[in-house]
Amino acid sequence: MRATLIYGAGDVRVETVPDPKLVEPTDALVRITRACICGSDLWPYGSLPVQERGRPIGHEFLGIVEETGAEVTSVRKGDLVVAPFLYSDGTCEFCREGLQSSCLHGGGWGQNGVDGGQGEAARVPQADGTLVKLPHTEDADLLASMLTLSDVFATGHHAAVTAGVREGSSVTVIGDGAVGLSAVLAAKRLGAERIVLMGRHQERTDLGRDFGATDVVAERGDEGIAKVRDLTGGRGTHAVLECVGTLPAFEMGLGVVRPGGALSRVGVPQYAEGPIGRPLFSNNITVTGGVAPARHYIPELLPDVLDGRYQPGRVFDRTIGIEDVPAGYQAMADREALKVLVAF
Amino acid sequence: MRATLIYGAGDVRVETVPDPKLVEPTDALVRITRACICGSDLWPYGSLPVQERGRPIGHEFLGIVEETGAEVTSVRKGDLVVAPFLYSDGTCEFCREGLQSSCLHGGGWGQNGVDGGQGEAARVPQADGTLVKLPHTEDADLLASMLTLSDVFATGHHAAVTAGVREGSSVTVIGDGAVGLSAVLAAKRLGAERIVLMGRHQERTDLGRDFGATDVVAERGDEGIAKVRDLTGGRGTHAVLECVGTLPAFEMGLGVVRPGGALSRVGVPQYAEGPIGRPLFSNNITVTGGVAPARHYIPELLPDVLDGRYQPGRVFDRTIGIEDVPAGYQAMADREALKVLVAF
Repeated sequence: MRATLIYGAGDVRVETVPDPKLVEPTDALVRITRACICGSDLWPYGSLPVQERGRPIGHEFLGIVEETGAEVTSVRKGDLVVAPFLYSDGTCEFCREGLQSSCLHGGGWGQNGVDGGQGEAARVPQADGTLVKLPHTEDADLLASMLTLSDVFATGHHAAVTAGVREGSSVTVIGDGAVGLSAVLAAKRLGAERIVLMGRHQERTDLGRDFGATDVVAERGDEGIAKVRDLTGGRGTHAVLECVGTLPAFEMGLGVVRPGGALSRVGVPQYAEGPIGRPLFSNNITVTGGVAPARHYIPELLPDVLDGRYQPGRVFDRTIGIEDVPAGYQAMADREALKVLVAF
Repeated sequence: MRATLIYGAGDVRVETVPDPKLVEPTDALVRITRACICGSDLWPYGSLPVQERGRPIGHEFLGIVEETGAEVTSVRKGDLVVAPFLYSDGTCEFCREGLQSSCLHGGGWGQNGVDGGQGEAARVPQADGTLVKLPHTEDADLLASMLTLSDVFATGHHAAVTAGVREGSSVTVIGDGAVGLSAVLAAKRLGAERIVLMGRHQERTDLGRDFGATDVVAERGDEGIAKVRDLTGGRGTHAVLECVGTLPAFEMGLGVVRPGGALSRVGVPQYAEGPIGRPLFSNNITVTGGVAPARHYIPELLPDVLDGRYQPGRVFDRTIGIEDVPAGYQAMADREALKVLVAF
């Protein structure tokens, strides 16, 4: 099959690799029909040291079940399924608590002999715990929205849930990337009344407004903080959804969170230490979030995607074929594309 | 009246100062009958630079209302009342949300012309929002337990509440001071099943066992972390209540918190930066807590104190008169006393 491998910063290649085969009785083989490139793929694309052998990459996909191991009971050949960005057994103590991202028998795509998600097929470990069956459809927009359940919309939702967004909340979303925009949509879905989107790319913030942002703040740093405080009577917002992952984004988040409020991080932190002393303590600020247990959220989010009420697939602004994946990376790195869909 | 003033590290004096008078129509005058010394008073006692004029100190007291301003309606002359460690109006947007520690018109004892709590009387600003009426009693143990509602028990409760302790939770409490022991009692009251108390003073940890600790770990640092992980099947506990305030205590807390769990801080952080990068993120650890809105919790906690089911006043192991307050500070600083009660 054809699959995407990364050889180092700026060096992504599509190559012919062996077709996946069932290994464990709990595996399923999935022929991938939709995949995509994630903002988090841009971290290795920006900085991975040169690799002698290419590493499979990609972690978001949906497709058709081709074959299942003897112990798989929840999906069968011919089903359309979506895979979350981590596989998980669905039965361990963490999975039972809804924290599939900490599954005791789970893991990530493209590691330890597991295929990456940007290829024509993948062996899916722990298929019963991992895959969620979808209705068959030819609707390209619906397929795109269902694909976002694998990561980006689920991750935005995780930010909103962990920050306690609910009916009437005021929310600041930091970052106008696909996760930030998904977080806007998720906050809106949970009933947020005021959603301030901090971002400076107008095409993206326009989509953010469509998704439910009531205000857009292009300024950053102290200027951005002052602007959000102006908009909120000096108080800041109950919830801050930090969808970038840099220290300045975290610090900006602390600057706009209301006393008693929560800052949730879903952008992978590119820093080890941060300011968590007296100001947080005095104001009872909660820092929360982390790697989203996407699998946990799919059953809740899917109905609202199927009935068309929420269209998270609108974050995709470019569709390519597998051979164009390297160009897709470059387009996202250059910010020419917000999020790239790969159709097979 | 006689009142306690601090002049610098190690220099606490009891002096005669002017009797308080009503200033605002929302004030009340309270004749203090019970007060106490707080672990947080030991920070200035350990490090305050020399002051030319003494600063009033103390922030926990109960007593008898002597006089009320024209606008005060909820308490009257002769009532026994407890004051939380911050005063608050009870009507602003934060008070209405239960975050009286961020009251827009609130403040602390011993600041801005307001009396400290370790004296014979105090002017109480925002009396309607601040004071809570208590039943009259001569029962010294009950008075001691009611006094803990002003800070120490309410603060332990805040740690447990913000960390999400509930029926069946596993909890680690870091610190065997009066706040840590109160946190044990609060966690037990909320239904925690497993309560690991990290502390090394046996008299204190024995009281912790009486309060509900199921395990005591005397080790610190990596050794302490390993011990708690041993006790919890390698996982750590859902909730960690950090009742010390130092960076090593915070780091130890991160070492024993279960994926998906929460570390709540109620010891005032003596650090500005801390490790909040990938490990927290990967494990979905929440960092929460802060200055307890004691006033918010008193109505909930009071009935359980009145009926004797919970006896948080057992943290007091020494009772002194006002003239002995300087010796009381020294006894607490020397760890000869756990928490010192001042009876008038």
